[in-house]
Amino acid sequence: MRKLILVKVGGKVVENHDSLNTLLKHFSAIKEPKVLIHGGGRSATTVARQMGIETKMINGRRITDSEMLKVVTMVYGGLVNKNIVAKLQSIGINALGLTGADLNYMEAVKRPVKDIDYGYAGDITKVNIEVLCPLVEKNIVPVLAPLSHNKNGQLLNTNADTIAAEASIAFSKYFDTELIYCFDMPGVMSDPDDNNSVIANLTYKQFKNYQEEGVINDGMIPKLDNSFRALEKGVNKIRITNIEGLTCGGTNLINN
Amino acid sequence: MRKLILVKVGGKVVENHDSLNTLLKHFSAIKEPKVLIHGGGRSATTVARQMGIETKMINGRRITDSEMLKVVTMVYGGLVNKNIVAKLQSIGINALGLTGADLNYMEAVKRPVKDIDYGYAGDITKVNIEVLCPLVEKNIVPVLAPLSHNKNGQLLNTNADTIAAEASIAFSKYFDTELIYCFDMPGVMSDPDDNNSVIANLTYKQFKNYQEEGVINDGMIPKLDNSFRALEKGVNKIRITNIEGLTCGGTNLINN
Repeated sequence: MRKLILVKVGGKVVENHDSLNTLLKHFSAIKEPKVLIHGGGRSATTVARQMGIETKMINGRRITDSEMLKVVTMVYGGLVNKNIVAKLQSIGINALGLTGADLNYMEAVKRPVKDIDYGYAGDITKVNIEVLCPLVEKNIVPVLAPLSHNKNGQLLNTNADTIAAEASIAFSKYFDTELIYCFDMPGVMSDPDDNNSVIANLTYKQFKNYQEEGVINDGMIPKLDNSFRALEKGVNKIRITNIEGLTCGGTNLINN
Repeated sequence: MRKLILVKVGGKVVENHDSLNTLLKHFSAIKEPKVLIHGGGRSATTVARQMGIETKMINGRRITDSEMLKVVTMVYGGLVNKNIVAKLQSIGINALGLTGADLNYMEAVKRPVKDIDYGYAGDITKVNIEVLCPLVEKNIVPVLAPLSHNKNGQLLNTNADTIAAEASIAFSKYFDTELIYCFDMPGVMSDPDDNNSVIANLTYKQFKNYQEEGVINDGMIPKLDNSFRALEKGVNKIRITNIEGLTCGGTNLINN
């Protein structure tokens, strides 16, 4: 099976001019067919503030009312996505920016209201990844924005880590897939204050032990839960690292 | 040669919920392979105002400084484009939203400064339409936002009428192309106050006579100049009409 590398980059990386350029340099060094998935939360918050729209977060998740949906559609689908695409084209990578509505590649439902009303947040229901396979085969690089749609004309704000995991799972039917989560730490660390404490290999059991001991916490927990689920569902390899570790390094997740 | 219909819709049509829905209903009735090109100037002006960014226009053209480029990237590439794509998907049309940077389908240069500095405005230099042909052949409907890029990482604000004309010219190498300019008047009119005065067929010579007499004026002149040039360069048919006239009606331009 042919290899496919999916790289997910967070807002902090793509929203800073220098780190974005460094990322794209390392990304272009990947020789295999590849996909980029990006966030953009910080830019959305900045633009919302400029527009006089209040950003509401609960448990680190954005509440997407209709005004905020406009903002994230503009920022994720337009500003961040199209600037990445233009930059990739400038270094000879044939990029194509997509939301879930484009080619209907990712369908979702508006998150049901339980305790919290997240507004226009999407829970993914169907990934039609086969529409992207012929593009990837032609060396086109999909650049996926964190937006999906409900097939009834409604765009939905959708977590970029989840889009990365779901796209990787779906692609693993056709490719030998590696998913790389690229953020601002060199990997999962046993001591958050010591950059030399990166855990090179992490099994699910070790992750749960570290979680119990409080070594791994906060935003890393859903990221790892998501990742181990993706490994179980067919993704071949998952790595968590920073820009510098894009081609090698960071933490390898081990499925056992 | 297979037929291809390109429909260009102005901001007024796509920015109003009801007229957009009517447009998409008529657009979906077109059975041939098709392309949609949209504007969005009014929304850009509204968002700019909300962000405290001043809109400057000279001779009806937007001055695109770096702040305004951010706005048009968000509004044209994100808000307007992705909402149209999501709505098209909801009526069974497999839409794909694109700027010129996506798939590198349209290259431009920043407009040289003569008397006026238009800022990040793009003058089209190269249309790589062959990258869109396999998509169109698969019944994918490209939705083109009025943005191009310079292949050096710079997005450029580009007039939607010009994008429509240049894309039509480039497509006419592969398809029998019809370009329909859809705006808020039923066609080119001999009396602007009388909706029954639509000129059914207009030659270039008649256009120039009407222009001299002052019957045709303002924004219609560059639109028609552009259109007759496109006819000369290989576009098979050009029609100017409103939403209701999308499938038939309006003014036919005659190349002689």
